[in-house]
Amino acid sequence: MDSQKTRTEEAEVSPARNTASSSSSSFLGNLLVVPMDGSHWIGIKAIAEEMGRRGHRVTVLIPEISIRLGPGKYYDTVVYPVPYDQAYLDSVMSSHTDILKKETESITERIKTRFSQFQKISNFIHITAEGLLFNDTLIARLDFDAMLTDPFLPTGSLVARKLGEFWYTGIISIPTVNVLRGMLFSMDMTATGCPSPPSYVPRFFTGYTDQMNFKERIVNTLVKCVLLCKMIIKKLQSQINLYINKYSDTMYNRSDFTLDFPRPLMPNIVLVGGINCDVRNPLPEDLESWVSGEHGFVVFTLGTMVSDMPEEITSIFLEVFRQIPQKVIWRYTGQVTSSIPENVKMMKWVPQNDLLARAFITHAGSHGLFEGLCHAVPMVMLPLGGDQHDNAMRFVNKGVGVVLDIFSITTEILLQGLNQVLHDIRYKENVLKLSALHKDRPVDPLDLSVYWTEYVMRHKGTEHLKPAVHELNWIQYLCLDVIALIVTVVLTSCFLTIKCIKLCYRKLSKKRKQD
Amino acid sequence: MDSQKTRTEEAEVSPARNTASSSSSSFLGNLLVVPMDGSHWIGIKAIAEEMGRRGHRVTVLIPEISIRLGPGKYYDTVVYPVPYDQAYLDSVMSSHTDILKKETESITERIKTRFSQFQKISNFIHITAEGLLFNDTLIARLDFDAMLTDPFLPTGSLVARKLGEFWYTGIISIPTVNVLRGMLFSMDMTATGCPSPPSYVPRFFTGYTDQMNFKERIVNTLVKCVLLCKMIIKKLQSQINLYINKYSDTMYNRSDFTLDFPRPLMPNIVLVGGINCDVRNPLPEDLESWVSGEHGFVVFTLGTMVSDMPEEITSIFLEVFRQIPQKVIWRYTGQVTSSIPENVKMMKWVPQNDLLARAFITHAGSHGLFEGLCHAVPMVMLPLGGDQHDNAMRFVNKGVGVVLDIFSITTEILLQGLNQVLHDIRYKENVLKLSALHKDRPVDPLDLSVYWTEYVMRHKGTEHLKPAVHELNWIQYLCLDVIALIVTVVLTSCFLTIKCIKLCYRKLSKKRKQD
Repeated sequence: MDSQKTRTEEAEVSPARNTASSSSSSFLGNLLVVPMDGSHWIGIKAIAEEMGRRGHRVTVLIPEISIRLGPGKYYDTVVYPVPYDQAYLDSVMSSHTDILKKETESITERIKTRFSQFQKISNFIHITAEGLLFNDTLIARLDFDAMLTDPFLPTGSLVARKLGEFWYTGIISIPTVNVLRGMLFSMDMTATGCPSPPSYVPRFFTGYTDQMNFKERIVNTLVKCVLLCKMIIKKLQSQINLYINKYSDTMYNRSDFTLDFPRPLMPNIVLVGGINCDVRNPLPEDLESWVSGEHGFVVFTLGTMVSDMPEEITSIFLEVFRQIPQKVIWRYTGQVTSSIPENVKMMKWVPQNDLLARAFITHAGSHGLFEGLCHAVPMVMLPLGGDQHDNAMRFVNKGVGVVLDIFSITTEILLQGLNQVLHDIRYKENVLKLSALHKDRPVDPLDLSVYWTEYVMRHKGTEHLKPAVHELNWIQYLCLDVIALIVTVVLTSCFLTIKCIKLCYRKLSKKRKQD
Repeated sequence: MDSQKTRTEEAEVSPARNTASSSSSSFLGNLLVVPMDGSHWIGIKAIAEEMGRRGHRVTVLIPEISIRLGPGKYYDTVVYPVPYDQAYLDSVMSSHTDILKKETESITERIKTRFSQFQKISNFIHITAEGLLFNDTLIARLDFDAMLTDPFLPTGSLVARKLGEFWYTGIISIPTVNVLRGMLFSMDMTATGCPSPPSYVPRFFTGYTDQMNFKERIVNTLVKCVLLCKMIIKKLQSQINLYINKYSDTMYNRSDFTLDFPRPLMPNIVLVGGINCDVRNPLPEDLESWVSGEHGFVVFTLGTMVSDMPEEITSIFLEVFRQIPQKVIWRYTGQVTSSIPENVKMMKWVPQNDLLARAFITHAGSHGLFEGLCHAVPMVMLPLGGDQHDNAMRFVNKGVGVVLDIFSITTEILLQGLNQVLHDIRYKENVLKLSALHKDRPVDPLDLSVYWTEYVMRHKGTEHLKPAVHELNWIQYLCLDVIALIVTVVLTSCFLTIKCIKLCYRKLSKKRKQD
C-alpha cells in the first residue's frame, strides 16, 4: 500500500499534461486494465500510463509469462500464474516466422501447417484466458470503477461481467472502455449498431478502397453477407453483441480518416489513430551520429511478431541495402549467416517513433503506419497478415507508399520499390500533406482517450450515447414488418379496386346486354 | 482600412482563449459570413466574434434592414441595400403573433391565414436573398478563404458558389462551413449521405422518441418516404445535395446527444450544441437584488419572434404568476392592459443565459433549451412551431421539463405545469444530471467550431472527410444492382438444376419403360 501511495503522490506532483477539459482533473478513480499481448498492448499501455500519471489508481492484470506486457512507471501490475513457461511461448511465437518460408511445400502441407499454427495460437490464447478467468481468489479481490480492455479477445469483457454489480443477473458489468483496430467480419461495427453500407465501406481482407466498381461491390457485399460465414460467426456475433453492445461504454478505434475511408460512426466510437506517436525522445548519441549523413537513412522493421526470417529472404534485403547509399537501421533478432553491409545496423529494438527516416520499410501494422505518417516518412509496405494488407492498400491509395508481396519478393522488386519511395518526390509530398491532416486535430488522441476513460468513470458509463438500435431485432431495425404491412395494404387496395372495377364493368355490360 | 487594422491588432493583443490546438493559432485567414436572421444568428455570431478575436479577418454580409443582425466588436460588417423598410419587416414579424390567436376562426379561414403568412415570409426571404445575390458590385469585391453560413436558406451557399475559383464550371465553390439545427425532411442528413434508419431515428415533426412502437415506426417510415413529399422536395433535395454535398466542408449541428437521441453521424458533421452558453456575465445590480429572494425566480420568454401576444393569453400568464411566490422575469415587448402583479418584471430583453432561475418557461427553441440545460433549470415548454415540438418532446422524455399546448392553455393547466417543475424534485435532479453530461466534453463547442472553421481554411476544405457515397446513385448506394444480379444468378441456377433433374428423371423413366 505504501508504494501505491508514493506512486499516486508522485503522479499528482508531476506537471500535468494539458487535460482536454478542466473538469476531468478533479475526479480520481480506480481503473482495471486487461490488455492483449503483442502490438495490441501499445495503445492500452499509453492510456494506462497517462491515467496513472494523472493520479488515478490503475491496475494492469498480466500473465506471468508474456511477450511484451510488463510494469510501467505510473500503474501497478497484478501478475496471475499461467500453466506454461517461456519455452512454450517462444514455440508459439516462432510459428509466425514459418509464414515467411518460401512456398516449396505442397498446398496440402501448407494448409496443414497453417492449421496447426492456428491451433497452437488458439490453444495459447485459451489457456492464458483461463489462467485469469478461473483465478477466483484474484477476481474476488478486484474492485474498480471501470475496465479498459481490448475486445479482440473477450477475456477483459468477461472479467468486467464477473465484476458487475448484479453479476448473477448476467446483464450488468462494470463500465467498459474498449480499444481496438477492428474485428473479423466487422463484428465490432455490427455490435455497436453502426451502419456500414457495402457500397462504399470496404470490408477487411478485400483490399478495396471506397471507390469500388460493380465487380468489387459484388465481392464486398458477398463478404458482408456470405451465408457460411454468417453461420460460423452467428454465435460469436451474438456473444460479441452482448459484450460490446450492452457492456461497452466507449469504443476507441485505433484509426482515423487519414488511414481509413470516411464512413458513418456511432456516438460512442472515438477515433484515436496515432495514439502511439505522441512522445518523441532524443536518440541515443551513438545512433544519432551513425544515422546522420548526406543520404539519410531507412528504417526497417516487420514488427515484434516476426523475430526471425528464412535465410533466403534476409539475403534479398541485405543485397538491396548493399546497393543503396542510405544507412539502414534494421530491427531484427534472428540469425544472419551472410555478411552484413557496412551501411546496415541490426538492432534488437528500434526507437522507430524517434527516427525521422528517408523511408520506412514496414509490415503495415496500424501502429507502425501511424508512426511513419506522424513523421511524414514514405513507406515500403510488406503486409504479412491480419489488417496489414488493407492498411497498406489504403496508404497506396493515398499515394504515400508502395506495397510489395514479401512472399514472392526478389532483389529487383525490392530495390525498385525502395528507390521509388526514396526518389519519387510525389511520395514525400503526399505523406507531408496527409501527415499535416493527421496531426491537425482538436484534441491529441492520447488526451482524448484519457478524457473519455475518465468520462466513463465519472458518469458510470455512457448510457445516453447508446443508440436504441440495440433494443431492436433485425426485422424491426430494417423496418421489414412496416414494409410488409405497407405492401400488403397497397396490394389489397389495388386488388379490391380491380375487383370493384371488374364488378362494375360486368354489371354495366350485363345492363347493356339487357338494354 | 484603418479601423480594420486597429481591430485586428486589438484582437491580437487581447489574451487568447485556450485554443483547442496550438497549430490553430498560427494561421490567419479571411472568413466571409452570410448569416440568417433571427435566432439562427446566435451561433454564427458567436463563431464570427471568436474568429475575429483570434485575429482572422471576418466580414459579415448583412441587409440594411434586419431583425437581429448587426455589428460586433471583432468582425466587420458589409451592409447591402434591400428594397423594403422597417415597417415592412415589422409587418412580416407581426404575423408570428397571429399564430397565438385563440382559434375562433373556421378551419378554412385558419388555412387561409397560415397560407398568407407563409407567402409573406417567403416573399420577404426571397427579396432579401435577391438583394445580396444580384448585387454584382458587392460580390465582385469579395475575396475570401472560406464561407461560414446557415444552409437553412441557400443564399450563403449560392454566394460561395459565385466566389468559387471555377465559377463558370458550376462545380467548385470556396470552402464552406454550414451551421444548422436541422432541415425539413432531414434533407441535411440526406445531403451528407448520413444513414438515418427510420426504426430508431425519429423524424422531425413526429415528436417521437428513439423507442417507437409498431404504429409509430409506420408513421416514421411513411414520413421518411411519403411519395408526395418526395416529389415536392425532389428538386429542392437535389439542389441541397449539390450545395451541402459538394460544397460543404464541415457541417455544425447545433445539437448534441443530451438533446437529440444517439444516431450515426458522418465524419464532417460536428456537434456544437450549447455554443451560445459559453459566456456568463454578472447581472445588472438592480436586477440581481430584485431576483434575490427565498423563493427564487422564474424566467419566461417565447423567443425573439413573438414580440406580442393576444390579451387572452397574456392574462392567463399574469393570473398564474399572481398565484406563485416566485419572482418572474418576462421578456415581452407587447402591450398589456391588465394590471401587472408585483412579482412580475417585464423586460424588452432578458439576459437569459445569465439567470440561474428556479424554472424556465420557454418556447423550446434549441438555443433557449441549451441555455436552460447549461444552468440546470427545469423547464415548462410551450412549443410554437418549427423544431420546437420535437425539442420539447425530447426533454420531456429525459424528464427535465413538461410540455404544454399554448394554443389551448388555461390558468389551471399552466399553474399545474409550473408547480410541477417548481416542486417535484425529480425535474431538478434530472436536469442536473443531464446538464453535467452536456457540459462534460473534451472541447468547448465554441472552441470546436472555431477549430474546424480554421481547419477548413488551413486545408482549403475537408476533402478527405467526404464519404464516397456522394459518387453513387441510389441504386448503387443500396447495392440494388448487386442484389438483383445475385438473385438472378441464384434463381437461374435453381431453375437450371430443376430442369436438369426433370430431364434426368424423364430419361430414366423412359429407359425403365423401354426395359
